[in-house]
Amino acid sequence: MSQSESTRERIIRAVVRIMGADGAAAVTNRRIATEAGISLGTLTYHFATQRDLVEAGMAAFVAAETVKFTQLADHVAEGAVDLAEAGEILGAIVTDTGFGGDHIAWFELFVQAARNPSLHVATTDFFETYDRLAVSILRALGVDDAESVAPLAVATLVGLQLRRLAGGGSPDQVVAGMAGLIAALTGPPHSPA
Amino acid sequence: MSQSESTRERIIRAVVRIMGADGAAAVTNRRIATEAGISLGTLTYHFATQRDLVEAGMAAFVAAETVKFTQLADHVAEGAVDLAEAGEILGAIVTDTGFGGDHIAWFELFVQAARNPSLHVATTDFFETYDRLAVSILRALGVDDAESVAPLAVATLVGLQLRRLAGGGSPDQVVAGMAGLIAALTGPPHSPA
Repeated sequence: MSQSESTRERIIRAVVRIMGADGAAAVTNRRIATEAGISLGTLTYHFATQRDLVEAGMAAFVAAETVKFTQLADHVAEGAVDLAEAGEILGAIVTDTGFGGDHIAWFELFVQAARNPSLHVATTDFFETYDRLAVSILRALGVDDAESVAPLAVATLVGLQLRRLAGGGSPDQVVAGMAGLIAALTGPPHSPA
Repeated sequence: MSQSESTRERIIRAVVRIMGADGAAAVTNRRIATEAGISLGTLTYHFATQRDLVEAGMAAFVAAETVKFTQLADHVAEGAVDLAEAGEILGAIVTDTGFGGDHIAWFELFVQAARNPSLHVATTDFFETYDRLAVSILRALGVDDAESVAPLAVATLVGLQLRRLAGGGSPDQVVAGMAGLIAALTGPPHSPA
């Protein structure tokens, strides 16, 4: 990795961290420069506009999640996964943003993307990466037609996570909710293969 | 309704409208006053702080949704609802915010709530109102154990809505996704009663 990439990476991490902690409104050039330990000149050299920064933050986030989720999907594909292990994987997803920030940053980015059509492709990639991991897990758990159920399971996870964050709940609620979904999809009279 | 309540209502509608159009960062006193057609003095008389405004916006939104969802739940409870009618109800929820604004305002409010513990109760009420409507619809569609499935269906709806807004999709995607969830929960070999 070149020095230039490393500085970009530091800037992007700072953006996601600030967004997570204090919201999109707090993402000012001055604050980013302070958090990333660089000069304002260096920042504007790397990112001319706020939109460039948000797009780069989104792209970096998607790339990090893609690596993580691909590793998880490979691990799941290697052997049968039971509900307990699926719960552990989910717990890791629910409590780790991949940026060491809090999860609000995800939703802040989604809200930005909803207002900014140039972010639609990155968001679509992000969700498709989630879908692929969900297919592996659902298939291993014996859910019929994992491909068509996966986007629903991803949506349920996103919705439960947003509900617990906005209502002040714990990550355990999300994991329990997902276990309930799997049970509803595989339980009697619809038993797993 | 007194004149004072009417002014509060106008302010709150302006807050939700601005939030939906341009985000929480755009909710300034000056802009609210302009949009609501009142003086700055009138605004600060009604709401001393930004936090008061966001809390009032959330509470008003929850109250409006509670009325709407209670009416829908009563309507559903009156007779059997088929998938087509459930789809129409969902379509109305997905395309109407109850504030004439766009749906990003909902998610903006949830993100605010995630950062502000004083909004957790309002958020919890909001989701519980959704749950009650979902129980009525799922029961009418013949889903077993509608009470435990309802929060999952609500989470799926929220997640699908966020994904389509952030990815630039259409409301039809959300309605189709929910139809898929109902089919997965009621379809063969798990057929409705």
